[in-house]
Formats: sequence, C-alpha cells, structure tokens
Amino acid sequence: MNYTAGEIAAIVCGKLCGDSDLVITDARGIDNATPSDISYINSREVLKQHRKCQAGVLLIQEDLADAVEAIEFPSVIIFVADAEQSFLHLLETANPQKMRPSFGISPEAFVSPTATIGEGTNIFPGAHIKDGVTIGANCDIHVGVVIGEDCRIGDNVTIHPNVVLYEDIEIGNRVIIHATSVIGADGFGYRLENGKHIRIPHYGTVRIEDDVEIGACTTIDRAKLGATVIGEGSKIDNLVQIAHNCEIGKHNIFVGQVGLAGSVTSGDYVVCAGHVGIADHVHLGTGCVLGSKSGVPKDVPAGETYIGIPAQPVADAMRMMMAQRKIPEMRTQLKELKKQVEHLTAIATNSKNEVSNTSLHAA
Amino acid sequence: MNYTAGEIAAIVCGKLCGDSDLVITDARGIDNATPSDISYINSREVLKQHRKCQAGVLLIQEDLADAVEAIEFPSVIIFVADAEQSFLHLLETANPQKMRPSFGISPEAFVSPTATIGEGTNIFPGAHIKDGVTIGANCDIHVGVVIGEDCRIGDNVTIHPNVVLYEDIEIGNRVIIHATSVIGADGFGYRLENGKHIRIPHYGTVRIEDDVEIGACTTIDRAKLGATVIGEGSKIDNLVQIAHNCEIGKHNIFVGQVGLAGSVTSGDYVVCAGHVGIADHVHLGTGCVLGSKSGVPKDVPAGETYIGIPAQPVADAMRMMMAQRKIPEMRTQLKELKKQVEHLTAIATNSKNEVSNTSLHAA
Amino acid sequence: MNYTAGEIAAIVCGKLCGDSDLVITDARGIDNATPSDISYINSREVLKQHRKCQAGVLLIQEDLADAVEAIEFPSVIIFVADAEQSFLHLLETANPQKMRPSFGISPEAFVSPTATIGEGTNIFPGAHIKDGVTIGANCDIHVGVVIGEDCRIGDNVTIHPNVVLYEDIEIGNRVIIHATSVIGADGFGYRLENGKHIRIPHYGTVRIEDDVEIGACTTIDRAKLGATVIGEGSKIDNLVQIAHNCEIGKHNIFVGQVGLAGSVTSGDYVVCAGHVGIADHVHLGTGCVLGSKSGVPKDVPAGETYIGIPAQPVADAMRMMMAQRKIPEMRTQLKELKKQVEHLTAIATNSKNEVSNTSLHAA
Repeated sequence: MNYTAGEIAAIVCGKLCGDSDLVITDARGIDNATPSDISYINSREVLKQHRKCQAGVLLIQEDLADAVEAIEFPSVIIFVADAEQSFLHLLETANPQKMRPSFGISPEAFVSPTATIGEGTNIFPGAHIKDGVTIGANCDIHVGVVIGEDCRIGDNVTIHPNVVLYEDIEIGNRVIIHATSVIGADGFGYRLENGKHIRIPHYGTVRIEDDVEIGACTTIDRAKLGATVIGEGSKIDNLVQIAHNCEIGKHNIFVGQVGLAGSVTSGDYVVCAGHVGIADHVHLGTGCVLGSKSGVPKDVPAGETYIGIPAQPVADAMRMMMAQRKIPEMRTQLKELKKQVEHLTAIATNSKNEVSNTSLHAA
Repeated sequence: MNYTAGEIAAIVCGKLCGDSDLVITDARGIDNATPSDISYINSREVLKQHRKCQAGVLLIQEDLADAVEAIEFPSVIIFVADAEQSFLHLLETANPQKMRPSFGISPEAFVSPTATIGEGTNIFPGAHIKDGVTIGANCDIHVGVVIGEDCRIGDNVTIHPNVVLYEDIEIGNRVIIHATSVIGADGFGYRLENGKHIRIPHYGTVRIEDDVEIGACTTIDRAKLGATVIGEGSKIDNLVQIAHNCEIGKHNIFVGQVGLAGSVTSGDYVVCAGHVGIADHVHLGTGCVLGSKSGVPKDVPAGETYIGIPAQPVADAMRMMMAQRKIPEMRTQLKELKKQVEHLTAIATNSKNEVSNTSLHAA
Repeated sequence: MNYTAGEIAAIVCGKLCGDSDLVITDARGIDNATPSDISYINSREVLKQHRKCQAGVLLIQEDLADAVEAIEFPSVIIFVADAEQSFLHLLETANPQKMRPSFGISPEAFVSPTATIGEGTNIFPGAHIKDGVTIGANCDIHVGVVIGEDCRIGDNVTIHPNVVLYEDIEIGNRVIIHATSVIGADGFGYRLENGKHIRIPHYGTVRIEDDVEIGACTTIDRAKLGATVIGEGSKIDNLVQIAHNCEIGKHNIFVGQVGLAGSVTSGDYVVCAGHVGIADHVHLGTGCVLGSKSGVPKDVPAGETYIGIPAQPVADAMRMMMAQRKIPEMRTQLKELKKQVEHLTAIATNSKNEVSNTSLHAA
C-alpha cells in the first residue's frame, strides 16, 4: 500500500481532518497500528479503549465525531459513514484480487471421460474427477482434490487442495471448501451382533447448499438414508465434525472443533462457538447461540443463549457459577450457625431448667 | 426403490396386514417418512412416540403386535422378527453393492518395484506405495494414498483417498481407513534441554488389528518403543486423536473428536462419547462408558459409566448436578436460618434477663 | 538390537553391576520390560513403583544408588549420570538414523519453473511447488504436498505427505510439519449484511519461525492483516486449531485438539494441555500452564497454572471442587439445623409463655 491521506479520503469518500500529504504504507488493526499505518474505529467502546492509538490515519465512524473531539489523537482522521466497510474497501483497492487463472482442464489432472466440466472451470494438476461427475461453470478444483463418482457441483465453486468428496455428493453454487476437508464419508453407525460391531450401510448422501463455506480438515458424513444437509449461507470453521443425517439450517455459524452427533437439526442463524458438542437428535432453534465448550443434551429454544455442560440459559449458568463461588463462604456460615444453634440449645436447656427452678421457687 | 408392499413382505419374509399393492418408492427414518416411504419400528418406546407416523409401509417387530392394535396407523404393516435387520436387508436388496472394480495396479499409481501387491488388489491412480511395502489380496488403495516404507497390510483392506501411513505400520485384515487420516506420525514427546524442547525419537510403530474401522481426519501416532495398538474390531470416528503408545482393546467405540493422551490402555467394549479426553497412562476397564465431554484423569473401573470433568460415576455426577442446582435455594435457606438464629439469640438474651429479672423479682 | 550388558555399559560409559555377558535384544518402557530387554529408571518415584521390574538390564541414575541397594532387582544394573539420556543414546546407536535420500527434484513432482529449490533438497513425486516459491537447502518436501504461490521456506525443513500451504506463507529453518496439516487457509471472519454472512478478506499471512514442529491434521489460519505467528521452537500437536492473527511466543507447547480463537497472543514457554480452548484476544502470560479441557475467557498471568471452565487458578479450582463435593453434606446439615432452629423457636415461644406465666404468677 502506498497512499497519501488525501488519496485515501478520495477512495473512501470521507471527510479529511489533518495533513492530506501524510503517506501511509500499511493497514493494521487498531491495537498495533504505527504512524505509517491506517486503521479504523467503528464504535464508541473501541474509541474509548484506544485514546493512545498511534495510527497515521484513522477512519472513524462519523456518528462518533462528538466523542473524537474530546480526545487528542496524533492521527489524521477521515470521517466516514461505515468505518469497517470503508477500511475493507480501501484494502480491496490496494490489493486487487488476483485474476483467476483460466487454463481449463490441466493435462496433468485425471478427469473421467464421463465427467461433465462447465465453461471457465479449472481442474488443477493432480486433481481426480471420477465417472459421472458434473461440475458447473467458473469453478476451481485445486491440486490433489478427489471428486467421487456422480457428484454434482454448481457454478463458481472453489475446492481447495486435497479435499475429498466421496461419491454422489451435491454441492450448490459459490461454495468454498478449504484444504483437506472430507465430505461424505460413511456415518459412524454400528449394530452389535454376536459381540461384534457390524457396519450399518449408509445409502444416503450430503447436500451442501449455495454460499456455504467449509473450513480446513472438517468432516461431514453422509446420511444413512436421505441426506446430511448444510443450509444456504452457513459457514463452518476448521476441524468441525458433522455426523450423519444432520440437517443444518441457513446462515448458521459453527466455529472450530464443534462436533454435531447424528441427526442434529437447526433453524437459521444458529451460532455454535468453539468446541461445542451437540448430542444426537437435538434441535437448535432459530437464532440460538451456544457458548464455547457447551455440551448440549437437549433442544435449545429459538433465540436463546445457552452455555455450560450441560448447556443451560446463560443467565442461569451465570447465577449458578456465582452461587458456586459462594460455597466456601456458605460452609463457613453453616459452621457458625451450627455453633450458635448448639449454644442456643444449651441455653434453652439451662433456661428451661432455670425457668422450672424459677417456677418452682415462685410456686 | 420401487416395490409393492406384497413384494416387500416377500423380501423380508414378513406377515402383511393391509393393501399388498401399495407402491413404495423410498425408505426413510420413522421421523420423516411419507406415504410413499417404508420405515420401521423396533421398540415399544419408538412405537409410542410415533402414533402419527405417515409411512406407507411399516416393518414392525412381531412382539409389539399387541401394542400396535391399539393404535390407528394409516400404514400397511408387515410384522417381522427383527424390524431393523429386515429394513437393512430390504435396503441391501434395493441397493445392490457396487461391484468392486478390478483393474489391479493403475499405470498412474506410483508403486515401488520392491513392494508386493496381492491378487485382486487395486492401486488407484495417484497412490504412492513405497519400498518394501506388502499389501494382501482384494484391497482398495485409493487415489492420493501414501503408504510409507515397509508397511504390512492384510487382505480386504480399504484405504480411502489421501490417507497417509508413515513407514513400518502394520494393518490387519478387513480394516477400513477413511479419507485423509494419518497413521504413524511421530508421537508428541520432547525433553527440555537448555531452554529448548528437543524431540524424543520414536522408534516404535502402530499396529491396527483385524476389522478395525477408522474415520476421516483421525490421527494415530507411532510409539516411542513397541507399538501403539488398536485392538480387533474397534471403531474410531472422525477427528479422533490417539497418542503414542496407547494400547486399545477389542471392540472399543471412540466417537468424534475424542482425544487419548500417551500410553492410555483399555479393555474390550469400552465406549468414549464425543469430545472425551483421557489423560496419559489411564486405564479404561472393560465395558466402561465415558459420557460425552468427560475429562478422565484416573483409571475407570470395568463396567462403570463415568461422566464429567473430572469424570466420576454417573450417579455421583447426577447427584452433584442436582445438588448444584439447589445452591441458590440453600443460600436463601441459610439467610433465613441466620435471621431466625439471630432472633432466637436475642430472645434468649432477653429471656435470660427476664428469667434473671423474674428470679430477682421472685427472690 | 543385539548387545551384551558389557557392550551397553561401554556405549553409555556407565558402571556395570552384574553379568556383563547377558544379551539384550530389545528396549522397552519400565512397565513392560522383559528379561531380554533394557529399560531405565531416572527418579526415586519410578524406582519405588517398579521394585518388581523384570528388565534384563536397567540403566539407573547414579544418584539413586543408595535406594537401589535396598531393592532386589533381578536385573543387571548400569549406573549412569542421566538415565533417560543414556537410554536415548543407546537407542540412537542401535537405530542409526536412515540416511536422507538424495535424489533432488523427482521427475514426477510438479515444480514451477519460477520456483527456486536449494541444494540437497528433495521434492518427492506428486508434490506441487507453485510459482514464485523459494525453498532452502536440505529440505524434504514429501509426496502430495502442495506449496502455494510465493511461499518462502528455510533450510532443513521437512514437510510430510499431503500437507497444504496456501500462498505467501513463511516457514523458518528446521521446521517439521506432519501429514495433512493445512497452513494459511483464510481465517473465519464474516460481516452480517442484509441477513447474509459476507466474507472478510484475509490479506495477511502465516509466519512459522525456526525449530517449530507441527503435528498431523492441524490447521493454522492466515491473518486478516499482518501475520499469524508461531514463535521459535514452539511445538504443536495433532488436530490443533490456531485461528487468524494469533501470535504465539517461543517454546510454547500445544497438545492435541487445542483450539485458539482469533488474535490470541502468548508469551514464551506456555503449555496448553489437550482440548484446551482459548477465547479471542486473550493473552497467555509467559510460562503459564492451562490444564486439559480448560476454557479460557480472560488473560492468564505469567507463571500461573489455570484449569477449569472458565479457567481459574488451580488452587481455587481444587478448593471449589472440594467444596462442591460437600454440597450434599451441606444440604443435610442445613435440614438438621432447620429442624433444631424450629425446635428452639418452639421452646422459645413456650419458654416465653412460661416466663410470662412465671412472671405473672410471680407478680
């Protein structure tokens, strides 16, 4: 990157305050920006926490202008309507996306004569496309990818190196699958017969809908019958396990190392944070959020935030956690009370005697 | 699938109740079967939960006949001895297993001249078989698989695409390894010397016994000395980590994302549910079960079910969980008691005084 | 291995006690050594636990000599200054490291004409080296490895089969990356716009410093801006997830299935045990240790050992765990106290009446 503050203001259509000739050579997050960097602030909270920011140029949300005046930034400031979007726009301008190569089917790829490959699609060297596969237009099937028999892949799909698709998988449009993920291995299902675990055959498949993105080293197993489904626009991180017959809704977010047991279903806009595990046949209601490391044995209602093992509403979990911290104090109180009660019991016994005595005397 | 109910009854040797001409075109689980589907019920509990099942044909365990009569299914019913087995048998009949291809060693595979390949074994394009490897009969070594020097592989083994076996690994008969798993990488062992972690060399190997199945993206490390062992018939799911020198018994079940630290040993028929972690040198007794997300710092006795972090007998864990839920209530009770005791103390003091006064007066 | 005890004593420069002609054919851990094996004991604790060790020859730390005399081992003993080191030295002597092959660039590898490959480096068959890549001297780039455009790799680096490096990654000297790991996939970052998760582009990279070792099936994502960094000498186990913009210090140890969310930073000599999860932007202080399965929502001070979900100082966690075990007992005590207090209240009421009556009578 090599822009003056003035050039940047022009690119982001912002209002410049400060030296328009200042030269910026890099972009960084607000935490470690230096005087030759541009960075951005898009919330009052971030603004408060970064009064000493050293960035050369700062893109700041214009509705924060009042708060900025109270602070002495050393930076040139450019006010914009949406600071994060402007920052991303600047980065895109500075880093024009590399043109997709356009070589078609590499002579070093292995493509079955019965496969159909769409226009503008690249099959990289060392990729294997098996019999009966259909791939749409403008896809990139990278080095070492294996696409099993009869898979059907849409348009504008990117499959990164060494990904494996077992046979008969369906992939929508604009799907991205990162390196070494495995889609469509047999589900983990056995039947104990005469002391041996006998495989239950998996006749089903996997369907990945449009605009899904799948991380690296993630596994999505095929269904016993029907299909394991990842709904439109859902995003799955690295090292996630999705077992047979799960049916995931639209626009879900599953963070790294999440594990879903068999036949889990979810509504739309569900979020599972890192290391969350969901038991089989559980339903995650639309818009629910599972905190990291939660273990989820039962259905989660729509819109709720659950956390813990077993997962419970976050307010309950917090209350229980607070209460747990009080246990040592409670033990002390209990001991104290016990002593007092013993003392009172002793007094009561004495006092009764005294009373009796008194009564006696009085009588 | 396209069968009449009568044809299905003949295939599963069952007793038909209802319209034998009804046409069935698909098979589904009981939860989402439609009038053109066949499904099955194999327990009284499932039967109770699915009084409104819409399946066109239902295979039902014959010992449930009494319970069925009380329910008004719209379905044609076929009574059989074992509903699940009959259902699987029907599916097998409808989906005859694809014949294994039989092309032998692909000219596009890389097979060392010092490797020995058994009869009927296929080495797919892009697979690499290194020096000194022995592979038995009727195996499928898929695309992109790498088999290191001196590995010994039995008969009827399937190794799915992009699996990596490091050198000198031993694989039994009828083993299945799913895509991109890694067998035999060096164990994670270091020695701190002068502030640096120095690798401890791993001279050992991995031995996978007969009928083991290993999921996708699973890692099994080689031993320091001797062998990391996976016992006969054990089944391992996706993304499982088995560290150096573990010795797993027969017919164990390890579900997705389980992690075993070094030198864990287990008896037979052990079950670890998802995300379970076992500390190093722990022994899991025969037939024990670890609930999902358990962390296991100590040996687990045979036959026991443990759960929690740290794992404890399930009854204790349940009792503790119930007790924890009572903490807020206990705090309220404590406060109440405290107030009462204070009150009593006040009374006792007064009453003592009164008694004294009384005595005085009386005196 | 095939040595006499006398030969072994010479190799390790130790002091032999017993039959120098005894023949040893294998080396094993102390737990399962047999009379034809050599093993070692390097601490008083291990010595106490293995009074019945059957090893033919035992290497024992010389400062344990006093304790040994009290025990009747059947073994020949060789005293040495550092038993583990001597044992490893013997193993090295018995298993001379295989010479690295030296064939250079395999004709079956795919190496871009614009890549630069150092002297003594092997590129194995089926490896793909893309445009602009620089690889130093004496590296092994194994079968099926994919190295993206413009990656820069140092000297003496080993990259095991089927590893994927995305473009523009920097790898130091003497780095080892185990099979099927993925370095440099896009970080998991989205921006919700009109109900859709829009990818945030990742312009950053990954920098792996000297002497780092990375396990199998591990994923390290590229930064949004700048670099995700793994500091010198750090060791990462299998199936670990390191998200975008993490900056890991030197000589850290991350055990299997650890997950780091975005922008985590760490000092030096940090240890994360298995299944630990760290929330985004958390700082792990130099020398801190996280117990297995911990969930870490906040910074951890240098030198501290934390454990639990949420992680807390180990002493607090132990105290809380002990306290939790007391809850059922506390409930019993509470009930008991309640009864006593009710009883006392009843007495107090009576006694008051009695006192009143007494007073009355007395009056």
